[in-house]
Amino acid sequence: MEAAARVIARRGVRGLRVEELATEAGVSTALIYYHFKDRAGILRATLEFINDRAGRYTTERLADEPPLTPRGELEQTLLLELQDTPEVRENSTAWGELRASAVFDPDLREDLARATLGWVQEVAELIGRVRPMNGAAALAASAERLTAMVEGLSVRWLSGSLPLEHARELMAGAIDSELERLHH
Amino acid sequence: MEAAARVIARRGVRGLRVEELATEAGVSTALIYYHFKDRAGILRATLEFINDRAGRYTTERLADEPPLTPRGELEQTLLLELQDTPEVRENSTAWGELRASAVFDPDLREDLARATLGWVQEVAELIGRVRPMNGAAALAASAERLTAMVEGLSVRWLSGSLPLEHARELMAGAIDSELERLHH
Repeated sequence: MEAAARVIARRGVRGLRVEELATEAGVSTALIYYHFKDRAGILRATLEFINDRAGRYTTERLADEPPLTPRGELEQTLLLELQDTPEVRENSTAWGELRASAVFDPDLREDLARATLGWVQEVAELIGRVRPMNGAAALAASAERLTAMVEGLSVRWLSGSLPLEHARELMAGAIDSELERLHH
Repeated sequence: MEAAARVIARRGVRGLRVEELATEAGVSTALIYYHFKDRAGILRATLEFINDRAGRYTTERLADEPPLTPRGELEQTLLLELQDTPEVRENSTAWGELRASAVFDPDLREDLARATLGWVQEVAELIGRVRPMNGAAALAASAERLTAMVEGLSVRWLSGSLPLEHARELMAGAIDSELERLHH
């Protein structure tokens, strides 16, 4: 899965060749087909892996850090998607590619929609801890906007239209606005 | 250019073959190379065409419609990017593909960044007419967020993660929030 994320981030979903993936992972193509059945199976499993990994790097805290406030946790979860580390850059590139490929590849859509929904729900829950006086629909709408903003800013950063620091400032502003519009 | 946008929207930038484009346009490949020099030249010209066409369908008004308020004009410009017509769907698909391809293809980045900046400036000007008491930096930041949101919601819609009507509601909410946070 790590090898698949690397290959997708390097060459795109449409550049993914099972032979290259096998070489990258140091296994045979037969083993890959045995585990994942076909290309669609590889992509689905990679999507899940990327999603889990993003969940980890946006929520991991050092043991000796003071606990975050609910607002700090929300900000960290969203802003840690906009970091120039090899892991985040690779993960965001691969996620953006899976998103862009799903426009052309209906096989990917269901899994992608499910992963997106899971992310939206997680962010809605964090927003709900900061602004508990709001209904589920309002929290979900804020979470949908903020996660769509992460995706929009992320691909602008990765495609060279937006410096990373500025993307982070814009994201922080979007969080402010969404928290402002909800009942306090 | 129309043929190139169609082929990209059908098969993606990475599926674009000059032979298919020539057939679609009803001309020879030699003529295409004569005009655009190479694949990068075709992509650059298509980007410009898509950008101009979006400018047209988001600002065209019927002659007998009453003039829009500044706010109505801002809303229309952004919400008309989220319409299920063949033209908008094709344009948004091709724009998203050029954006996603630029992550892997440095040749596209400069033109894409320039087109993005032009769009941001145009939206910033519309926001400035609704909220004239704000400096250029605040207007530009709002425009960057709103246009990134259009891109984020648009690719979610096209990739089957978000129904169009809901994308439009979320976009309308984002416009509300941005106007709310600026000085009135």
